[in-house]
Amino acid sequence: MRSSNLYAVILAGGSGTRFWPVSRKSNPKQFLNITGKGTLFQETVARIRPEIAGSHIFIITNAAYHNTVRRQVARFKIPKANILLEPEAKNTAPAICWAAAVIQKTDPGAVMAVLPSDHIILEQKKFLKVLKEAVRLAREDYLVTLGITPSRPDTGYGYLKTARKRVNGKQIIRVEKFTEKPAISKAKQFLKTKKYFWNSGMFVWKSSVILEEFARHLPKVYGLVGKKTGMAYIRRVWRLVPRISIDYGILEKSKNVVAVAAPGIGWSDLGSWESLMEVLSKDKRGNILKGDIVAVNCRNTLVWGEKKVIAPVGLNDMVIIDTPDALLVCPKDRSQDVRDVVDVLIKKKRREV
Amino acid sequence: MRSSNLYAVILAGGSGTRFWPVSRKSNPKQFLNITGKGTLFQETVARIRPEIAGSHIFIITNAAYHNTVRRQVARFKIPKANILLEPEAKNTAPAICWAAAVIQKTDPGAVMAVLPSDHIILEQKKFLKVLKEAVRLAREDYLVTLGITPSRPDTGYGYLKTARKRVNGKQIIRVEKFTEKPAISKAKQFLKTKKYFWNSGMFVWKSSVILEEFARHLPKVYGLVGKKTGMAYIRRVWRLVPRISIDYGILEKSKNVVAVAAPGIGWSDLGSWESLMEVLSKDKRGNILKGDIVAVNCRNTLVWGEKKVIAPVGLNDMVIIDTPDALLVCPKDRSQDVRDVVDVLIKKKRREV
Repeated sequence: MRSSNLYAVILAGGSGTRFWPVSRKSNPKQFLNITGKGTLFQETVARIRPEIAGSHIFIITNAAYHNTVRRQVARFKIPKANILLEPEAKNTAPAICWAAAVIQKTDPGAVMAVLPSDHIILEQKKFLKVLKEAVRLAREDYLVTLGITPSRPDTGYGYLKTARKRVNGKQIIRVEKFTEKPAISKAKQFLKTKKYFWNSGMFVWKSSVILEEFARHLPKVYGLVGKKTGMAYIRRVWRLVPRISIDYGILEKSKNVVAVAAPGIGWSDLGSWESLMEVLSKDKRGNILKGDIVAVNCRNTLVWGEKKVIAPVGLNDMVIIDTPDALLVCPKDRSQDVRDVVDVLIKKKRREV
Repeated sequence: MRSSNLYAVILAGGSGTRFWPVSRKSNPKQFLNITGKGTLFQETVARIRPEIAGSHIFIITNAAYHNTVRRQVARFKIPKANILLEPEAKNTAPAICWAAAVIQKTDPGAVMAVLPSDHIILEQKKFLKVLKEAVRLAREDYLVTLGITPSRPDTGYGYLKTARKRVNGKQIIRVEKFTEKPAISKAKQFLKTKKYFWNSGMFVWKSSVILEEFARHLPKVYGLVGKKTGMAYIRRVWRLVPRISIDYGILEKSKNVVAVAAPGIGWSDLGSWESLMEVLSKDKRGNILKGDIVAVNCRNTLVWGEKKVIAPVGLNDMVIIDTPDALLVCPKDRSQDVRDVVDVLIKKKRREV
């Protein structure tokens, strides 16, 4: 696969706080070392590094995270110029359009893999195999999404409705519809039909093909950041760019989207502490105890500590996250409500956000 | 009541860790400011101060807590000589015998109130009224215990079995039996008969009377610390003194014990975080939130924090106690299991004990 016209665009501008209190606006999820091997962002770069040279890896992030990104990619030999700095967050479509334009300029035949940097993928080899298949399809001018086979009716993910078709004697999985976070009844139905994938947010396409799609479906974005790409220019026009996601702006409209199934890659978008628990290894009581923990009669409980001794006693299905200036305690299945806490802290203009 | 021969002996030598992680061996429960008004020990002194002059208040504590005690009683004008320092913990009987001997020497007609300093009593006026009644009975040579009317079949308390008798035309409540922490079935039975009180550990008697009881029931203790009382002497003989409680050593054996009912004094021995919750005031959802707390959908939950922001989310009947070097999280009804944590920490020789 190590082909000279394969590029990666790593999206590292998110400012999510769903991992509060560990993640903060100033230090969002992608910059956290959750697995112990490196930050999620570093892991994302390391994962593709065997197949894509540093010079072909682009990173697009918020200007606020420039130093963090520089520090974290130091060991990967990525040229400074490959770090694209958004003056402000505009969701994924403008970022991808700008990156596509930059790549298109240096390599008109480029294939680019768009990769979020705040997800976890445990199985690198399987992932690279799936990526290879996606690149093959992208070379045939498809917009390729990596689809995750759902293992449960999760209401926290977006779903891809697909249909298997034969094209030129080969089977492809055409994406017919995008569904954002469904109700539980719908999610259960999706699971039954076996036609649905989770939308992983990972995409592969030719830069030329996606730019054509931008020109067609998001002409305003294309007009502003699909041709001229210089930093000084971008700084000037970025505020005029509409805020829109690639899913909503392009993929839901295009007739050209296919999926590649990505079985067994150990993917999670880490949308909550609960989803993290699914991918980390547990002790025989189902606990994940990180730090200096004295647990008594606990089961299926995540305790994430730093320096102090933490004593969880008689807990089931709980999440305890302790940091130097903030502590979260909640039942596992309520870990999505962390956003309520963050909302309160934002309202109170608290520095712990 | 401010009678010249009434004395108080405040027991301040306990080293319990049932309030871990807030209480420690080096800073046990009685020295904690739980109510916000002062430490439990200070509150104990302040509570009797309107009726008993500083010069009549004796404090018996472990030598290890000397500085803490000195600091905490500074404002009460208690003579240095009234602070009796046990070289090591020997349970309550030897401490009380020594204190009685000290008081007996200065005032042969003394009545002494023995008061634990790690309990809470919310209603000072009612308490002082009960104390007055107890003093009256003590003057008639009874050993008087303050009995708490049980409000539930608690298995964490000792119980007094009583019988109402008429003596010289007056009704007294004679204590017939002491029962240490009963099984739940027994406790329920006790509650039904209405003959039982909780043993508050507060006693009133003449120093001369209790010394006679020591001479009869605990001659070894009496022989060692019931007559000679000097500090140098005590330091020499204390290690020979048996380790025994006043309940077990004297009160269970004496035929001379009566109870005074202490209704509505708002007493708790604070034997666990759960029992603390019963006496502190709650918000309308039943929560007690001390510190910088952002609670979302919590009920009947105690959160005890210091500096950092704590976010309890979706919790019911939980206890969260956060200190700079240790954090406890447990269901309210498991708060007695804190001792298991402390045991582990002791085994590991951890400084957090």
